[in-house]
Amino acid sequence: MNTSMLEKELSYLLTKMQKAKPLVHNMTNVVVTNFTANGLYALGASPVMAYAPEEVADMAKVAGALVLNIGTLTGELVDTMVIAGLSANANGVPVLLDPVGAGAIRFRTESALRILREVKISLVRGNAAEIAHLVGEAREIKGVDAGESGSYDNACLAVRAAQELGTVVAITGREDVITDGRLCRVISGGDALLTQVTGTGCLLTSVLGAFAAVEQDLLLAGTAGLAFYGTAASRAAERTAAFGPGSFQTAFLDELAKLHPHSLKGYAAVREIQAVSAGGLS
Amino acid sequence: MNTSMLEKELSYLLTKMQKAKPLVHNMTNVVVTNFTANGLYALGASPVMAYAPEEVADMAKVAGALVLNIGTLTGELVDTMVIAGLSANANGVPVLLDPVGAGAIRFRTESALRILREVKISLVRGNAAEIAHLVGEAREIKGVDAGESGSYDNACLAVRAAQELGTVVAITGREDVITDGRLCRVISGGDALLTQVTGTGCLLTSVLGAFAAVEQDLLLAGTAGLAFYGTAASRAAERTAAFGPGSFQTAFLDELAKLHPHSLKGYAAVREIQAVSAGGLS
Amino acid sequence: MNTSMLEKELSYLLTKMQKAKPLVHNMTNVVVTNFTANGLYALGASPVMAYAPEEVADMAKVAGALVLNIGTLTGELVDTMVIAGLSANANGVPVLLDPVGAGAIRFRTESALRILREVKISLVRGNAAEIAHLVGEAREIKGVDAGESGSYDNACLAVRAAQELGTVVAITGREDVITDGRLCRVISGGDALLTQVTGTGCLLTSVLGAFAAVEQDLLLAGTAGLAFYGTAASRAAERTAAFGPGSFQTAFLDELAKLHPHSLKGYAAVREIQAVSAGGLS
Repeated sequence: MNTSMLEKELSYLLTKMQKAKPLVHNMTNVVVTNFTANGLYALGASPVMAYAPEEVADMAKVAGALVLNIGTLTGELVDTMVIAGLSANANGVPVLLDPVGAGAIRFRTESALRILREVKISLVRGNAAEIAHLVGEAREIKGVDAGESGSYDNACLAVRAAQELGTVVAITGREDVITDGRLCRVISGGDALLTQVTGTGCLLTSVLGAFAAVEQDLLLAGTAGLAFYGTAASRAAERTAAFGPGSFQTAFLDELAKLHPHSLKGYAAVREIQAVSAGGLS
Repeated sequence: MNTSMLEKELSYLLTKMQKAKPLVHNMTNVVVTNFTANGLYALGASPVMAYAPEEVADMAKVAGALVLNIGTLTGELVDTMVIAGLSANANGVPVLLDPVGAGAIRFRTESALRILREVKISLVRGNAAEIAHLVGEAREIKGVDAGESGSYDNACLAVRAAQELGTVVAITGREDVITDGRLCRVISGGDALLTQVTGTGCLLTSVLGAFAAVEQDLLLAGTAGLAFYGTAASRAAERTAAFGPGSFQTAFLDELAKLHPHSLKGYAAVREIQAVSAGGLS
Repeated sequence: MNTSMLEKELSYLLTKMQKAKPLVHNMTNVVVTNFTANGLYALGASPVMAYAPEEVADMAKVAGALVLNIGTLTGELVDTMVIAGLSANANGVPVLLDPVGAGAIRFRTESALRILREVKISLVRGNAAEIAHLVGEAREIKGVDAGESGSYDNACLAVRAAQELGTVVAITGREDVITDGRLCRVISGGDALLTQVTGTGCLLTSVLGAFAAVEQDLLLAGTAGLAFYGTAASRAAERTAAFGPGSFQTAFLDELAKLHPHSLKGYAAVREIQAVSAGGLS
């Protein structure tokens, strides 16, 4: 697909999502619930949080997407995530996984892998260290923050992870990469201020869920989510970089609400990359 | 009561509440805890959150009001809410219920109804769909967001619910209605930006709690809460509508802190409405 | 130590902390998780939250500091805090305690005292009422907000508490005091707007944790944390006092991110005080 055709597809998806106002069922960590809900409202989606074993299957069934985030998991919560995930699977609702802190702590790595085994996951989004640990590669991680690595390395890792895990994989960092294991795209845009605000990765996964709710091609949905998210961040940073992360967070919500089909121009660029997977040329 | 006398009463209540700085015990959902606490502080009240079975009875006893919000309930949490509610009942502390998502999911409807059966509730606030489901009417609901309906319909529904549930009922929407089952008031004001920020309904219920802590006539207390809340929202929207929901949320907290007895003028209007309840003319 | 030498030490510690980006493991209440994480990121530290019995020992072990905050505790969570605390103790990681609401509710007082008995705590930070109740003095407390008392009284109380509890004790209020039971410092600065934003005390304890992660002399680390925190608050208030607590909160995060070694000048003052402890002249 050439760039200008792709841009048209992404723009069309934004409009489609804004019109559909998809219900996104988030089972996320206690740090980011508020920011996630506000970000989804700003984007034009309809967030809901539900965690009780008694209700998650019912909620996931009627949602447009289910987002599982293990940022502050407990053993019991993982059980409930599996209940929700199986309900989503049975009803054709895409399930996204954010493996926050996988690799930093064994319990998180194991919980993420358990979810991947027991639930059909459509898309995984994490930083390079988190994704690496899901496929048995060790990378530097401190708490929940990854070290930085290059887009080419990330692309190779993402391709390998997509093939092994059987999902679309997005790795976010200075540039973002996304792949279904064959085609790999690099999205540039965004701003380093995103790393100074908690939950920007978590919200992004939920934003990808909003796009996944309206587009079955999850590589395309994910590309749209990454491109528009980075665009909102770049525009917010233009207004607030002189002030700091508090002002940026506020402006970022404003800019998510202002996204329109022509917002990408000058703010986000998508290119395809030939990535070498673990098993040779992909 | 004529309008100008009512306005004086409402203004007096604001001053009374600001002086008393009532302790409002919130058992609310994990999405809105921070916003609720900040909103109550801004208003001049004193928020506290407590959820442990070991402490909720002690906390509810010394509070000016107890607010129960089922936005992210679990079975265990509903048990604890009943413990807190019974302690409040035994000590003359008003209890308010926010049935978030009732109707969307059976477990939530049932939990709200259980609380209404086991605890004496003074005031219920919800959107039209939530209130409708508490009295067995089906209305459109998507996740936790209601469809929009007219003030006259909402007034009829509120009157019916107030009579059946034996509480004051407030239904919020484009305009808000509140009734004790006989007298019904419509409060206009507020701003559509409220629907783009998560927790604005939840915080409102807690704000009604702050007014209920200083005024036994809960219809009057509720009218004050709705009118001043809408006023703060309107004023915040004047400053920030050009920016978006992030800026609005920040400004809304600012404006809650700036409320004074004369703030209502030009921002909120209260009228009485003759509502037809399910059983005939009310 | 004379004032200008102390100021140099504090400035040096800020730089050291910003370079180290210490991992601060927070087990904190559900109201303040987001604000705490954002505040620590703004300061330049690396926050992580982890609550599961299965992972807290692993996380505390690799952290630079562990912060225990009982703002929305449950019996089970206190058990888990002890697990985390013992792991921190065994690995030389300083543990800080924020006894939110101790004194207001017996369960909280008992839980704070249990943690103090079972875990070696390096620093306790609270308001005067909370600290008083830990050493068996009754002071006025409403919910989680203390009444106001003078710096001299607070210094005496802090010295007594430090001696009895065997930790560094910080009492925050109009002025802050900190002591190891012998030397007592009073830090002025900050702004009353801090009392209108929820979680500013909780975040402060986590900020002290970030400094404790890079400096073994906890009286010095705590003095640095208090002085820089107050400085950021004063600067934020300069920009936003005309607006209100919403704007202040945003600006406060901005100012935490702008702190540099020379920020203290004109904003924070540290003096030593001769405090009379319960047992006579200290």
